[in-house]
Amino acid sequence: MTAKNMEDLVSLCKRRGFIFPASDIYGGLKGTYDYGPLGVELKNNLKAAWWSAMIYDRDDIEGLDSSILGNRLIYKHSGHEDTFSDPLVDCRACKQRMRLDKLVKAGRCDFCDSVDLTEPRPFNLMMRVNIGPVLDESSYAYLRPETAQGIFINFKNVQDSLSRKVPFGIAQIGKAFRNEITPKNFVFRVREFEQMELEYFYKPGDGARLHEYWLNERLKWWYEQGLSPDNIEVQHQKKEELSHYSDATADICYRFPHGFDELEGVANRTDYDLGSHSKDNDALGVRAHVQPNRDSTVKMTYTEPNTKETFVPCVIEPSCGVDRGVAALLTEAYDEETLENGETRVVLRFRPHIAPIKVAVIPLAKNNEVIVEKSREVYSMLKRLRIGKIELEPGGNVGKCYRRHDEVGTPLCVTVDFETLEKEPATVTIRDRDTMNQIRLPISELEDYISSYYRR
Amino acid sequence: MTAKNMEDLVSLCKRRGFIFPASDIYGGLKGTYDYGPLGVELKNNLKAAWWSAMIYDRDDIEGLDSSILGNRLIYKHSGHEDTFSDPLVDCRACKQRMRLDKLVKAGRCDFCDSVDLTEPRPFNLMMRVNIGPVLDESSYAYLRPETAQGIFINFKNVQDSLSRKVPFGIAQIGKAFRNEITPKNFVFRVREFEQMELEYFYKPGDGARLHEYWLNERLKWWYEQGLSPDNIEVQHQKKEELSHYSDATADICYRFPHGFDELEGVANRTDYDLGSHSKDNDALGVRAHVQPNRDSTVKMTYTEPNTKETFVPCVIEPSCGVDRGVAALLTEAYDEETLENGETRVVLRFRPHIAPIKVAVIPLAKNNEVIVEKSREVYSMLKRLRIGKIELEPGGNVGKCYRRHDEVGTPLCVTVDFETLEKEPATVTIRDRDTMNQIRLPISELEDYISSYYRR
Repeated sequence: MTAKNMEDLVSLCKRRGFIFPASDIYGGLKGTYDYGPLGVELKNNLKAAWWSAMIYDRDDIEGLDSSILGNRLIYKHSGHEDTFSDPLVDCRACKQRMRLDKLVKAGRCDFCDSVDLTEPRPFNLMMRVNIGPVLDESSYAYLRPETAQGIFINFKNVQDSLSRKVPFGIAQIGKAFRNEITPKNFVFRVREFEQMELEYFYKPGDGARLHEYWLNERLKWWYEQGLSPDNIEVQHQKKEELSHYSDATADICYRFPHGFDELEGVANRTDYDLGSHSKDNDALGVRAHVQPNRDSTVKMTYTEPNTKETFVPCVIEPSCGVDRGVAALLTEAYDEETLENGETRVVLRFRPHIAPIKVAVIPLAKNNEVIVEKSREVYSMLKRLRIGKIELEPGGNVGKCYRRHDEVGTPLCVTVDFETLEKEPATVTIRDRDTMNQIRLPISELEDYISSYYRR
Repeated sequence: MTAKNMEDLVSLCKRRGFIFPASDIYGGLKGTYDYGPLGVELKNNLKAAWWSAMIYDRDDIEGLDSSILGNRLIYKHSGHEDTFSDPLVDCRACKQRMRLDKLVKAGRCDFCDSVDLTEPRPFNLMMRVNIGPVLDESSYAYLRPETAQGIFINFKNVQDSLSRKVPFGIAQIGKAFRNEITPKNFVFRVREFEQMELEYFYKPGDGARLHEYWLNERLKWWYEQGLSPDNIEVQHQKKEELSHYSDATADICYRFPHGFDELEGVANRTDYDLGSHSKDNDALGVRAHVQPNRDSTVKMTYTEPNTKETFVPCVIEPSCGVDRGVAALLTEAYDEETLENGETRVVLRFRPHIAPIKVAVIPLAKNNEVIVEKSREVYSMLKRLRIGKIELEPGGNVGKCYRRHDEVGTPLCVTVDFETLEKEPATVTIRDRDTMNQIRLPISELEDYISSYYRR
């Protein structure tokens, strides 16, 4: 099973140190969350898996980490200043403000049922900050609403400094900010979030094939992180739903507790992005409809080394939300199981590479010095494997320790018990989270066992 | 040697894809930088080393990843709203604005030499953003000026959910923002930067010992990252320089190209932070001078399990800048060496775990299919070791490849040449960046050689 309702997840996340509402001691700040000790490991593991798949396992993608603050001209030419907005209406009766397109009863205030609403006005979702000591309109910057633009404006920097040939990609992980009117569904729709975005640059003509290729690559990757194909649905946007520049967009949707919703979008954005940010873009044969750019200082073109053909590269963009990924992993992993004794155990069935704690070492008796000392030795040995977080329990009630590690998804518990001390060679038990089976293994074989478990 | 001037570093960083000025194609945005393909690896390697040292190698520290946006009450009670400011003056003649404490000629405008300056006014360095659809004073949040406050407000969340006993620490890596009047010295003083901060909570009384302990731990760690003790100086702040709440602060200063300057601060902040954020803080015996807090909903106290003694924990804070760390690593690693033939080679002598590219595989002849195919096999094999970024060169001029990898600090180059094809068992050469010595090794031994090189 997976998590059926958000409340179970939210409560487990808070109780066990995965995710807390942010600014909580001061009444919170809507749409922001803090990742606790287990949440940060979970999130980092997901990010590391993506970075490996993009940067280390392939030979056609470079990494980037661009700034969150951006010159406003970036977002003028990207189109965000003009179009990245929701239509808002005010209720003249109760003074509440709402999104016109999300009103529960069309034309009526959601709060007081009045029909005395203002005309809709566009509300831009970008957050802006003043930069420098002078407070005026000329000195503000935007917090990026997506990481993608940082990639586009660095296209030539990366291509030149790394001598890259098209096709190649640039990948980035980082925070982005949107002034969502109604943050909701836990970490699904928030005002501060993290993205993992790839922009894969190609020569015009290769779009259809590459769009399909990347959609399949991304699906395969999500399956490898543990999401079940049964809980994933690909929605191809219809021609009339597409942005004016887009050739094709496929949404990878996951079955969240609130329903199927977007986890990742894979879009063929054609030459709109590099075209928009290019100097003299009206003379470069850009196919997408772009506004003339008199601000940019760089031509975003590429010249084929052999044919000397020059063109503005197109992009395929697989773009996903890290926080949505974390929510999907938690939803998928969550299980409640009725045990033989009638009790219920909650278990998070993460894949080993995703689990926040890799191994818990448990001394069976917390007052037995030899057992505690031996546990500490085993613990130190496992830390040296550098496979991630290893935890040493204070010990005592081993059943309680197993329950806690089931609830946070620790794949393996290693227990040092009285038998460890009695027989030669010294052995420990290894308990599997999913099957609850235990095997006994000489300590001398433990390193190999654990490291091959985490290599597979 | 190390880098003697900033220009060499800045130019190498741009040319080789380490660090670019941000928003560059639109005239830039002062005090912001983008990390290119090599820079992001370098920075991630430094962050991973810190996270390992804090979280995986120790058993008394938990991780956290709190939000950048913060409720303004956090920064009211932390003291930032009142005191986190620089004194600014305006020149009535030329309308420029400057920091009073940094004027080149006291009492005179730095731009036009006029003495007609306004009275100084405090200029708060925090950046604020509007949140939610209504634009008014009640709905703004701050971009955090340091990651530390996110740790303090989560003290009880972490302590409760992980059942932690004092002393223990909470560590965090993340972005912070300051509206610096005069960003300068490359990535040293910027408006958007990344921090690695530890807050180590202890029982009042243990401060002096722990402050010394952490100062030594942090020095040791910087040495392990490759900084030479000759280039590091510890400056103990004098009693009169300390903040009113601080018991002791030691600055770890590095010899940057612009001179010795702060890389990390290790401060004993006493019980000021948890005291300030605590509900009913006037009744808790807080020793530091704190403002009464009627906003917080949580008592930031800890009760000893055995003695039942309740107190507000104190903190030691080792806090360093990631970007400054990167600048120090680059400065330290930079070397220019005159070769036997009179040519100069530039080499970045990074420690292996810090180097952005771990191994470069070079086919000696780019038009020899067998050599190219063999190189690709070796490349795939090395990628499977999962030690980081491996690069496959297109090949051709091997001397040029070596120079490029010297310049980006790749410790090892593996070259597939004609001898590889001629003899059994097939061998490759491994060239060491620092000594330029080459050894020949059977391909069958390559995996072991490389993985033990990166394990040491």
